[in-house]
Amino acid sequence: MTKKVGIVGAGTAGLHLALYLQKHGVEATIFTDRQIDEYKGMRLLNTVAHHSVTVRREVELGVDHWPSNEYGYFGHYYYIGGPQPLTFYGDLEEPSRAVDYRIYQPKLMEDFVNRGGDLRVTEIRHDDVATLAQKFDVLVVCTGKGPFGQMFKHQPAHSPFGQPQRALCVGLFKGIGPTPTRAVTMYFSPGAGEMIEIPTWSFGGLVNALVIENHFGGDLEVLSKIKYDENPRAFLDQLLEKLRKHYPTCAERIDEKEFDLANGPLDILQGGVTPTVRNSHVRLDDGKLVVALGDVHAVVDPVLGQGANMASYAAFILGEEIVKHEVFDDRFIEHVDLRRQDRVLGATRWTNYMMQNLQAGTPSLLEYIGEVSQKRPLADRFTDNFNYPERQWDCFASPERMRAWCAQNGAAPLRGSQPQLVRANA
Amino acid sequence: MTKKVGIVGAGTAGLHLALYLQKHGVEATIFTDRQIDEYKGMRLLNTVAHHSVTVRREVELGVDHWPSNEYGYFGHYYYIGGPQPLTFYGDLEEPSRAVDYRIYQPKLMEDFVNRGGDLRVTEIRHDDVATLAQKFDVLVVCTGKGPFGQMFKHQPAHSPFGQPQRALCVGLFKGIGPTPTRAVTMYFSPGAGEMIEIPTWSFGGLVNALVIENHFGGDLEVLSKIKYDENPRAFLDQLLEKLRKHYPTCAERIDEKEFDLANGPLDILQGGVTPTVRNSHVRLDDGKLVVALGDVHAVVDPVLGQGANMASYAAFILGEEIVKHEVFDDRFIEHVDLRRQDRVLGATRWTNYMMQNLQAGTPSLLEYIGEVSQKRPLADRFTDNFNYPERQWDCFASPERMRAWCAQNGAAPLRGSQPQLVRANA
Repeated sequence: MTKKVGIVGAGTAGLHLALYLQKHGVEATIFTDRQIDEYKGMRLLNTVAHHSVTVRREVELGVDHWPSNEYGYFGHYYYIGGPQPLTFYGDLEEPSRAVDYRIYQPKLMEDFVNRGGDLRVTEIRHDDVATLAQKFDVLVVCTGKGPFGQMFKHQPAHSPFGQPQRALCVGLFKGIGPTPTRAVTMYFSPGAGEMIEIPTWSFGGLVNALVIENHFGGDLEVLSKIKYDENPRAFLDQLLEKLRKHYPTCAERIDEKEFDLANGPLDILQGGVTPTVRNSHVRLDDGKLVVALGDVHAVVDPVLGQGANMASYAAFILGEEIVKHEVFDDRFIEHVDLRRQDRVLGATRWTNYMMQNLQAGTPSLLEYIGEVSQKRPLADRFTDNFNYPERQWDCFASPERMRAWCAQNGAAPLRGSQPQLVRANA
Repeated sequence: MTKKVGIVGAGTAGLHLALYLQKHGVEATIFTDRQIDEYKGMRLLNTVAHHSVTVRREVELGVDHWPSNEYGYFGHYYYIGGPQPLTFYGDLEEPSRAVDYRIYQPKLMEDFVNRGGDLRVTEIRHDDVATLAQKFDVLVVCTGKGPFGQMFKHQPAHSPFGQPQRALCVGLFKGIGPTPTRAVTMYFSPGAGEMIEIPTWSFGGLVNALVIENHFGGDLEVLSKIKYDENPRAFLDQLLEKLRKHYPTCAERIDEKEFDLANGPLDILQGGVTPTVRNSHVRLDDGKLVVALGDVHAVVDPVLGQGANMASYAAFILGEEIVKHEVFDDRFIEHVDLRRQDRVLGATRWTNYMMQNLQAGTPSLLEYIGEVSQKRPLADRFTDNFNYPERQWDCFASPERMRAWCAQNGAAPLRGSQPQLVRANA
């Protein structure tokens, strides 16, 4: 008998799960409140890079429409600001790739439908869930929208924050010149914020996402508040001024006449994300299992680009376990959780660690950055480990581990002038 | 810098860990209260079969002194008693093997010492632990003897019982003729108990271990109380009488003139085991990690032969993680637990399940046994899964799973006379 799985939400988690199940003979039905052709006229959804671990899953699903040797980027530049800035570069072993989700999501929805998938555009309310669940062997919720977030309890042990940790300003921009190698640049402005520049494919081709992560109460917070719509020129001037001051190696590459939102006023998002881990599942009154997947299970700040990648990872784990099991009970979810939790928690812990300790200028982190900046093998390893957040957590779980990681990964500790300067800038 | 690991206890867990670490360049020191040459004069330690998963680890360690094609056994006979008894047989994919631990343990201790290992025969008291731990990067406790059991707290969620569930009588016997295939026989006497007959290599060659598991208050409980030492002939007569009544296919193969303890009066153990799962580790006041391994972590009734196998499995996991990590902290033990817990808990849950439900004669278990008895592929799978207790738990976690397992593993449900008869006998 064919297994039937209901999936609420058509983000990366829901789509990758649906396509996986479809490929393996499980009947998946997606419920979403958005039409496929709505996406092209929507506000920017987010700014997301898919690391090579995720691209490999897309290849497996036959949805790698943007081969990363052509559309991808190949490493990370790092810029640590202050009186004497520090810059360094690390390679990815295989390229990552960022595509505007207003292109990516509807394309994968089309793939699913073209292969015979059942995609239903409808509003699901919380009180529909029990009725809906009865039609499926297992129901998967992949959206935290509205009432769905409340279905799954917060896990306080893994949710240290009650509010966003950064005031975000996220946009797609044109007029920013290329870096020598096509790469992400991660900028750190001690005491003010971080910025991630991501080469991103959007409607008109390659543009740059700027994920501007501003400390509350700092010099950059204003960027999360001033409104492009009210006065585009004033917004851009303010942004340029802040980029020149805090992220000068980005500002240098900007053609100020060209610099603007890439496709128009919908290319910007402002606000904040409260990092949260929720219970992995609930059992309804009739015993039916409802599984949390993606953001509704664990949501992280975008600073390290982990959200979609851990959602896709967890979608595959869940898909594999659905294919393997016949009974969807506590033992089933135990298998799922045992396999997905280390990466999901790794991404959560590492992202939360970096947000807290970059802002605090923790000496052990600055010492770590100093060392990594001096040893290319360390920078490469750190960069490629964006694919494997649980390995980052193996490094960042304690200062002792960070030192051991640096020693083990090939760098004799270099305690020269740079780390000291970095520390002085904190 | 060489890592230093202290190991308290020289059972299978401690020996396999020590040999693994020794092989991988980690300095392991074993502390035990027994001299190597004490073992040959000791009372029977237990009756243990090593399944092929464990034998493969022994091959890897270079301590497979009893190749299982020669010393092993090849499957399980099953006998379900009652007015119309049911018998069937299942193959192991690779042979299991049982060697008297009074031979096995000192031989592996010798291997460790001959390879340059540091084995210290000394009494360790609980209040020595902190001092001892200071000398090592991590201390591993592999014995629940005396105060060591109390170092690690019970986990009530996984320790449902406050007392032994069977009154045990365990011995090594001569005078029992062979089965057609050299195999374990598992006997079930509804309402009275279970018995496991294991072809075992002891000092004089191949003999049979009888692990006689008696329900408290039942007809067989007396076997856990009468003393061989007080009157060997009376003991043997009583045992023969009970075997004829409850386990006749064993009694049939007995040469009553020959039948006796194999090597003399030390070949018998009586008592009981309280199945218990304890916390996986403690942190001492100075932060040093002490890890629980083997019986002190999780102890099971011997009815399904899981104890030593899960201890060896966990020893390898711990060894691999010690080799991999440089810092022995909460993140380290998280890795260890994530990898070992499913098998350790699987063995615990499945063993506890079988003890409770064999005794209760639960209809879904009797139905399961009925089906397995009719379909050789099911019997083979069930038998080989003694290697993989987590797979057994995938089957036994609920009646729905047991039915799905039977359907999925190749048997159209056969609801003929045998299952009914079995049910009638419960």
